[in-house]
Amino acid sequence: MERSSDVELLMVGYELLRGDRNDSHLEYLGRRLLEIGVRIDRVHVVGDDVKAISELVRERHQIAAVLVVTGGLGPTHDDITRDGVAEGLGLPLVFDPSQWMRIKGYFERVGREASESNRRQAMFPRGSTPMDNPRGTAPGFLVEAGGCLVTALPGPPREFRTMVDASLIPAVARRLPRLPVFSRTYRTMGVGESQIAALLESLTREYDEFSLASLPHVAGVDLILRAKPGTIPPDSLARRADAFEIELDRELGHKIYAKGDRTLEETVGRMLAERHATVAVAESLTGGLLGTRLTDVPGSSAYMLADVVAYSNEAKVDFLGVKKESLAAHGAVSEIVCREMAEGIRSRTGATWGIATTGIAGPSGGTAEKPVGLCYYGLTGAEGPDIRRRVFSGARDDVRERVVWASLFLLYERLLGAARP
Amino acid sequence: MERSSDVELLMVGYELLRGDRNDSHLEYLGRRLLEIGVRIDRVHVVGDDVKAISELVRERHQIAAVLVVTGGLGPTHDDITRDGVAEGLGLPLVFDPSQWMRIKGYFERVGREASESNRRQAMFPRGSTPMDNPRGTAPGFLVEAGGCLVTALPGPPREFRTMVDASLIPAVARRLPRLPVFSRTYRTMGVGESQIAALLESLTREYDEFSLASLPHVAGVDLILRAKPGTIPPDSLARRADAFEIELDRELGHKIYAKGDRTLEETVGRMLAERHATVAVAESLTGGLLGTRLTDVPGSSAYMLADVVAYSNEAKVDFLGVKKESLAAHGAVSEIVCREMAEGIRSRTGATWGIATTGIAGPSGGTAEKPVGLCYYGLTGAEGPDIRRRVFSGARDDVRERVVWASLFLLYERLLGAARP
Repeated sequence: MERSSDVELLMVGYELLRGDRNDSHLEYLGRRLLEIGVRIDRVHVVGDDVKAISELVRERHQIAAVLVVTGGLGPTHDDITRDGVAEGLGLPLVFDPSQWMRIKGYFERVGREASESNRRQAMFPRGSTPMDNPRGTAPGFLVEAGGCLVTALPGPPREFRTMVDASLIPAVARRLPRLPVFSRTYRTMGVGESQIAALLESLTREYDEFSLASLPHVAGVDLILRAKPGTIPPDSLARRADAFEIELDRELGHKIYAKGDRTLEETVGRMLAERHATVAVAESLTGGLLGTRLTDVPGSSAYMLADVVAYSNEAKVDFLGVKKESLAAHGAVSEIVCREMAEGIRSRTGATWGIATTGIAGPSGGTAEKPVGLCYYGLTGAEGPDIRRRVFSGARDDVRERVVWASLFLLYERLLGAARP
Repeated sequence: MERSSDVELLMVGYELLRGDRNDSHLEYLGRRLLEIGVRIDRVHVVGDDVKAISELVRERHQIAAVLVVTGGLGPTHDDITRDGVAEGLGLPLVFDPSQWMRIKGYFERVGREASESNRRQAMFPRGSTPMDNPRGTAPGFLVEAGGCLVTALPGPPREFRTMVDASLIPAVARRLPRLPVFSRTYRTMGVGESQIAALLESLTREYDEFSLASLPHVAGVDLILRAKPGTIPPDSLARRADAFEIELDRELGHKIYAKGDRTLEETVGRMLAERHATVAVAESLTGGLLGTRLTDVPGSSAYMLADVVAYSNEAKVDFLGVKKESLAAHGAVSEIVCREMAEGIRSRTGATWGIATTGIAGPSGGTAEKPVGLCYYGLTGAEGPDIRRRVFSGARDDVRERVVWASLFLLYERLLGAARP
């Protein structure tokens, strides 16, 4: 039966409405479904309220091909999602002894005892297929009702994601067999907002078989090219996308630091590994964030030697060999101190590259001459130092994030040979 | 007029449904509204589709007292929220010359030129009050329609949040004058899941004028006590909450590391500052994350001296004075190396406390004897070292997060005198 929407998501929980929690369930599910060519058409969020849930389920299961309900499957008296779904579908809840055994088994494995309140978790709308939960007590379920595949999954993110991957995606793929959406991602940095806007406008006109989304992040813009359904034959898409990519490359060049989902730190890490180069970091205002970012990458121990966060002036002198005179004459936030930090960490570790950051993250500590947001960052290598000065806008976190991104991007450009000291 | 719901939120954007972006708009708005005693009753997410938006607006503005619409107010042809809202309310869009002047002025200030497509951003449903956007081009608007206050705000988070605070919250407070919800937050760590569950069950029965939410995070659980509306007189609430707090304190003691929104690193920072104590960090697997967390706190330069991320063995020896023999005999992931790291950073900086982490974050690098997730972490101070061993579960990020939390919590316990080496 043709349905007017594919997948709808109903998230249940007062804690979502109160802003106590942001589960990212929509983000996760949206992405995973897109990989199998299925999209979410609509999302609803309501509190833990049987009437609200049952009304929505009653309405939406007549419209959507698949209705995914999350949250409210726990053992407490607030967990009433199963009641709401059963009522909305006009089905009684029935007790499943074999699921009750499984729940008790889960508790035994983690060294606890199932309580009587957990019994409710073995109740399902009649005709349901229970869905295993390898990471928690609450099983999910799938049930056919009125032409809709209705499923319920627990809300804790680890449980939800595991069950989406293991059970939900295969079930949706069977129900809505689709071709994966043709898509390509281009991650950029250092391109002006207006240049991006003008570029998108002209490319969107020329390549109208694609939609082109621009997603700005704290320090860069991702471009996502996706085929519109049914415009041109699937085998022509790759050719057209290649043509698009040539135009994009011509316009943006190395500012595209990744094609696909790779992060900037992964790109940099791969380039360092390929060149058998190493890096060492000296940080001040970023407090370890630059090192954290570099070591977020599995295998980073192959090229990351050390990171010294020299928050105090003494540490800058003792660990990095920054000159006391430089600190006295120019202050910790200065080009010369940044350069001495980079040179110090490079010479003391023998790394191919030394990177450094210093600046004023705020909210206090700024002066007329050195305002909050003022940062020096840069690197030194075989060809000598390259230190940049920027005043970054935003709150403390923004300033720290932005200087980390700028430092990584400078290293990326130098590794490419695209920037010269 | 009595409405069956207070505030509903309609988020517009295919990028939300595809999982390209997670704006946290619901989280932010939910929290800010709760501060003025107003709750969000229902949330809807749809794509950039005039029909979907207009149908929802037509239906929900007859039910909600306030309808907040976000996203899709930009200048591109995909930005059709204003059309959808106008159609849903049965109002024509009219051009506002003074807003057009403002938009052009914004572009001049940032050194760009407004294009004809930006003209659309000066179109509003008839009768609207435009809402200034100090951080971007798209103005929002408020309009009275059918007994509902309908508002539209742009989607970029910085713009959305600024306009929520400056314009939306005051407007909602005038529309729905409420008492702030009485609430208290208790942040805990180191309490078992089953202990929390049992505790909540008994306390919820005894204090049934409150609802008690437990929000598990990566390494701890927040408890939020909130008064149910209209159960007991407002002036008795504080007394009852105090009684509740005494019971909670008796049960959980120092495991409650904060009453209110303070983070663990803020708690630790405040304790260090009060004691005129300082801290220095030596990290391995956490790659700078522990230092980042400590320096997330404004003013942390008062107690945070330095953080050495000694990723390589050479760096452990050179920067921290770890003995080559210890590394050779026990490996980098061992109690003795962790202790020598803590002692090394403490003696080389003269800090009151030296903290250290070493371990295997994964996904590779584990062995039968030293599995992925094995961590040693701990500290040393005037009373000598205290090094702990744990095997943390989860992916690379989880392991790193958990050992950072555990290290901070151990420092917190030692500062309290609650843990002894």
